[in-house]
Amino acid sequence: MTVLKLPTRRDLREAASRIAPYAHRTPHMSSRAIDALVGAEIVFKCENLQRAGAFKFRGACNAVLSLDEASATRGVITHSSGNHAGALALAAQIRGIEACIVMPEDASRVKIAAVRAYGARIEFCASTQAAREATVARLQQEHPRTLVHPYDDPRVIAGQGTAALELLQEFSDLDILIAPVGGGGLLAGTALAAGTAPATAVYGAEPLAADDAKRSLAAGHIIAVDRPTTIADGLRTCVGEHNFAIMRQHVRDILTVSEAAIVAAMRLIWERMKLVVEPSGAVPLAALLEHGPPPGAKRIGAILSGGNIDLNSLPWSAADEA
Amino acid sequence: MTVLKLPTRRDLREAASRIAPYAHRTPHMSSRAIDALVGAEIVFKCENLQRAGAFKFRGACNAVLSLDEASATRGVITHSSGNHAGALALAAQIRGIEACIVMPEDASRVKIAAVRAYGARIEFCASTQAAREATVARLQQEHPRTLVHPYDDPRVIAGQGTAALELLQEFSDLDILIAPVGGGGLLAGTALAAGTAPATAVYGAEPLAADDAKRSLAAGHIIAVDRPTTIADGLRTCVGEHNFAIMRQHVRDILTVSEAAIVAAMRLIWERMKLVVEPSGAVPLAALLEHGPPPGAKRIGAILSGGNIDLNSLPWSAADEA
Repeated sequence: MTVLKLPTRRDLREAASRIAPYAHRTPHMSSRAIDALVGAEIVFKCENLQRAGAFKFRGACNAVLSLDEASATRGVITHSSGNHAGALALAAQIRGIEACIVMPEDASRVKIAAVRAYGARIEFCASTQAAREATVARLQQEHPRTLVHPYDDPRVIAGQGTAALELLQEFSDLDILIAPVGGGGLLAGTALAAGTAPATAVYGAEPLAADDAKRSLAAGHIIAVDRPTTIADGLRTCVGEHNFAIMRQHVRDILTVSEAAIVAAMRLIWERMKLVVEPSGAVPLAALLEHGPPPGAKRIGAILSGGNIDLNSLPWSAADEA
Repeated sequence: MTVLKLPTRRDLREAASRIAPYAHRTPHMSSRAIDALVGAEIVFKCENLQRAGAFKFRGACNAVLSLDEASATRGVITHSSGNHAGALALAAQIRGIEACIVMPEDASRVKIAAVRAYGARIEFCASTQAAREATVARLQQEHPRTLVHPYDDPRVIAGQGTAALELLQEFSDLDILIAPVGGGGLLAGTALAAGTAPATAVYGAEPLAADDAKRSLAAGHIIAVDRPTTIADGLRTCVGEHNFAIMRQHVRDILTVSEAAIVAAMRLIWERMKLVVEPSGAVPLAALLEHGPPPGAKRIGAILSGGNIDLNSLPWSAADEA
């Protein structure tokens, strides 16, 4: 069994200082109407307003700025069809190093354009996990770059945790913090941040259709869900090892939500808060609406994780009415 | 010729104090990507994040809180299918008085629900200006309430100007301020606010299809456009008399925009800023994109006026691609 080197609260604070000149200190927002529906006060940490449109920039930026000069000079590489792709490309551009992003050939045109605009090199591959990993391996043989994993990496976890750290600096009296969980970078980082506020319990939220985190915590070891189909495209990934180890120690529970609840929560945030949020970012509110707030949770911090969504394919039709 | 009693900068400052306990001091936001496209720095005043989803709450709140006790006791009345309806209903709820809103029977269900949620009484009428006015007149005979006009009212104009006042308090060095113009409450209020910053020129922006403000300023008297068809539903109204008198004194120019530019600007704000903005609120950015910034305008303040839009009928299809 490998001994994992887990990030600490000190790593989190260092990450916060490291990324401060580049990342936005995102605002928090609330909605009286949503509070009334949930029956609790919720402050949303608006990571959809983060650079590159998601919290992912925090972790990528921390990882890239942490590299020693020799590793940085070799450039960075990752595979991602999602928010980590743009985040790493932007972080590399800021440090002035080369980024190579392996993207599936069916990635959205908007996301491809964003990665390109940040000056990264894109290598396309077939749309399977095996093809992605094989492509990275081939490219690494040609030219060894530093792999920056999207979530299973202590520097990335520490970076993601800075969002909750900021929220807790402004609201030290939260009863719970709730974050979506896919690979677990955000949730593990949030759990570490909450270590600074012992009265705050940490919950994860994930689609019922991709409930690997819930199952894994119950079983005591990582259980993957085979090819989950959920609208929350950021949460299809299986929990990483570092992430799981932190979650086991610090996460109270995982709440699972239906697909309908995700769409309804997302629509509520658009209509009531006037914020463009992607399905994954609406999953914590979906959990609060579907299950009610956890016992005793009157003041809730929720991480609104990102806002990158294709406006051409919204998950409601003219037949729906709010 | 009637002598109009126009609001002054003092009225604006009084409005700001009066509404401060109830209205949000909305945030301002920027986008590097949009700045690069326009070729100037733009700070957007986010009135889509105002209570009831638009700047309209400022004017309605100032008008309702300005009423003497006797007038307030009689309740308020208006006709509106748009943002003023919800804004007046909320303002009346805050003061604890009755509001009666005359709405066309084809008003959107979302807006009807909002007015109802704020506790106002709704009277439906046919969807013509004549029917609206006749319905208000009939109701006034039954029970005389105080009419709060959506824009042609000094208290409303003073309230709307507080948005620009807040922006100028944070950015005293803006070269220009630009606001959408329909009835002219927001633009006239913005022009009065800019009186506190003499180096800041004020521009209006309106759809080419509803260019009554542009024509009226050129002619020196109000010229209505007959039933304009524009996606910017908040800007179909004709400029009011008080509004026009202020605009003649203080507005540098009106920029007109195509319908395509409005949709493109709106989409840019959704995609790049992750903000839900209604078509009318995107008109200033549309003007900057279509005409370029006015000569010498390097630092621009733009009022992003509102975010109330029916998510079931967005003005783009799956065939579009950004």
